Amino acid sequence: MSKHTSTPTPWSDRLRAVTPVDLASLSSGATPGVLDKEAAATESPGIAKALSTLQEKLFADSLFGGRRRVLLVLQGMDTAGKGGVVKRVAGTMDPQGISHHAFKKPTEEELAHPFLWRVEKRLPGPGSIGIFDRSHYEDVLVPRVHESVPSVELESRYEQIVDFERALVDDGVAVLKVFLHLGFDEQKKRLLRRLDRSDKHWKFSTADVDDRALWPSFHDAYEVAIDRTHTSEAPWHIVPADNKWYSALAVQNLLLETLQSLDLTWPTADYDVAAQRARLLAT
Amino acid sequence: MSKHTSTPTPWSDRLRAVTPVDLASLSSGATPGVLDKEAAATESPGIAKALSTLQEKLFADSLFGGRRRVLLVLQGMDTAGKGGVVKRVAGTMDPQGISHHAFKKPTEEELAHPFLWRVEKRLPGPGSIGIFDRSHYEDVLVPRVHESVPSVELESRYEQIVDFERALVDDGVAVLKVFLHLGFDEQKKRLLRRLDRSDKHWKFSTADVDDRALWPSFHDAYEVAIDRTHTSEAPWHIVPADNKWYSALAVQNLLLETLQSLDLTWPTADYDVAAQRARLLAT
Repeated sequence: MSKHTSTPTPWSDRLRAVTPVDLASLSSGATPGVLDKEAAATESPGIAKALSTLQEKLFADSLFGGRRRVLLVLQGMDTAGKGGVVKRVAGTMDPQGISHHAFKKPTEEELAHPFLWRVEKRLPGPGSIGIFDRSHYEDVLVPRVHESVPSVELESRYEQIVDFERALVDDGVAVLKVFLHLGFDEQKKRLLRRLDRSDKHWKFSTADVDDRALWPSFHDAYEVAIDRTHTSEAPWHIVPADNKWYSALAVQNLLLETLQSLDLTWPTADYDVAAQRARLLAT
Repeated sequence: MSKHTSTPTPWSDRLRAVTPVDLASLSSGATPGVLDKEAAATESPGIAKALSTLQEKLFADSLFGGRRRVLLVLQGMDTAGKGGVVKRVAGTMDPQGISHHAFKKPTEEELAHPFLWRVEKRLPGPGSIGIFDRSHYEDVLVPRVHESVPSVELESRYEQIVDFERALVDDGVAVLKVFLHLGFDEQKKRLLRRLDRSDKHWKFSTADVDDRALWPSFHDAYEVAIDRTHTSEAPWHIVPADNKWYSALAVQNLLLETLQSLDLTWPTADYDVAAQRARLLAT
């Protein structure tokens, strides 16, 4: 008898980076694995529920001595939708098990320390899902584009990142790295929308327009960063981001697969359930 | 002509504590202001949307130098549903603008410092909504029940809390204090449910049953704490908590009113919108 059902392609296979990366050759408007927005909307609630249950298992595991946790690293050009993905992905989970941090331009104090210093302080604790909106990757992207760090230092940073992430994995952290791949024209549309609405003016910065001239340099810096830090323990995923519904669903699925890979189980009661029930009923 | 529409009673008026508090006289199963679960479900999405917009305004305000923020303090007996309220209330907002912390039994390091030390470290920054699942109030509740702190020190703590919260308000923090009022019988049901389900066993602790014997002492400690720290700047609200749908909706509404009271407006663009549009269109 032939097998009637085929195993669906894991999202991690579908979206895992293939190095050397050539971003120009990758469609930012594609929606691999999903037919359309309606199909995504149908699929989304089930994934949210599965995520929520696994998050609770991860949290419960940590109360019984487990050290496992997840780190989701989100990178992308301005307006790529990092914040929106966080809102969609984290919004369906328990805020108590999420540790979110948006990295801004480094402060004076942060610049006085090695670049991983501020990142280490924000790592999720056991049982938590950490979400980095920007991350240590900014420290190899911006300096490369603006040539603000000596190249020997820059070279060393790629290696430090690989070592850092390997140490995290060894310590029980599942590292999920996502590049939200936005198109140049779609960014223009999104920036125009911010100018069109007075309640979105605060989100616009004149530097956003300046940075569009540096688009090829940033893409180049991303390609090098991904190539140099794409490891089997902590691989990169490239998520087409012109459609917000797609990028949100893709990251949800990637996170779900990451949690599933941990093979979590509910902790066993370390007390006599029947005896406790009897005690409780007597109160 | 007579006025046909009456102003609805604000939730803050409806649920504000009336001192001296007598918890035994207050129904934990009441649902003031809402007919039933269906009515709550109808009302909830609109409130979530309003909360989300105001949260964004609060965040935007902070980017333009505003210092305002909100601190929601959630207290209640075990299984009162603090975690569930956090999930419901925070789940519809942007995780980036939420700073959540669940206070556990103090560590050795925390005990070596004044009791407000660990609390100060967790205060929300400008533009954020801080949520405390338990708080500095644990430091006047547990020591009172277990007589683990000299009474002169305990007395001083109530005053320190009042001063501390007044300083917060002066610094731009809107302080919203909520006691989730759970019934003794409803707690028993909730604990039994945890014993009934093997995927909830990890949530049960034998100490939960021990603590039921101390219920009157804890209620007494809550009454004193509320009476002593119920100020015009930082009043207490007592939310009936036997119905989870009610307590979630009530806290959402209290938070909404708190945000509305800040009279937030969208920041004005500090750049020439037309000029930036022209620049952008040229890219």
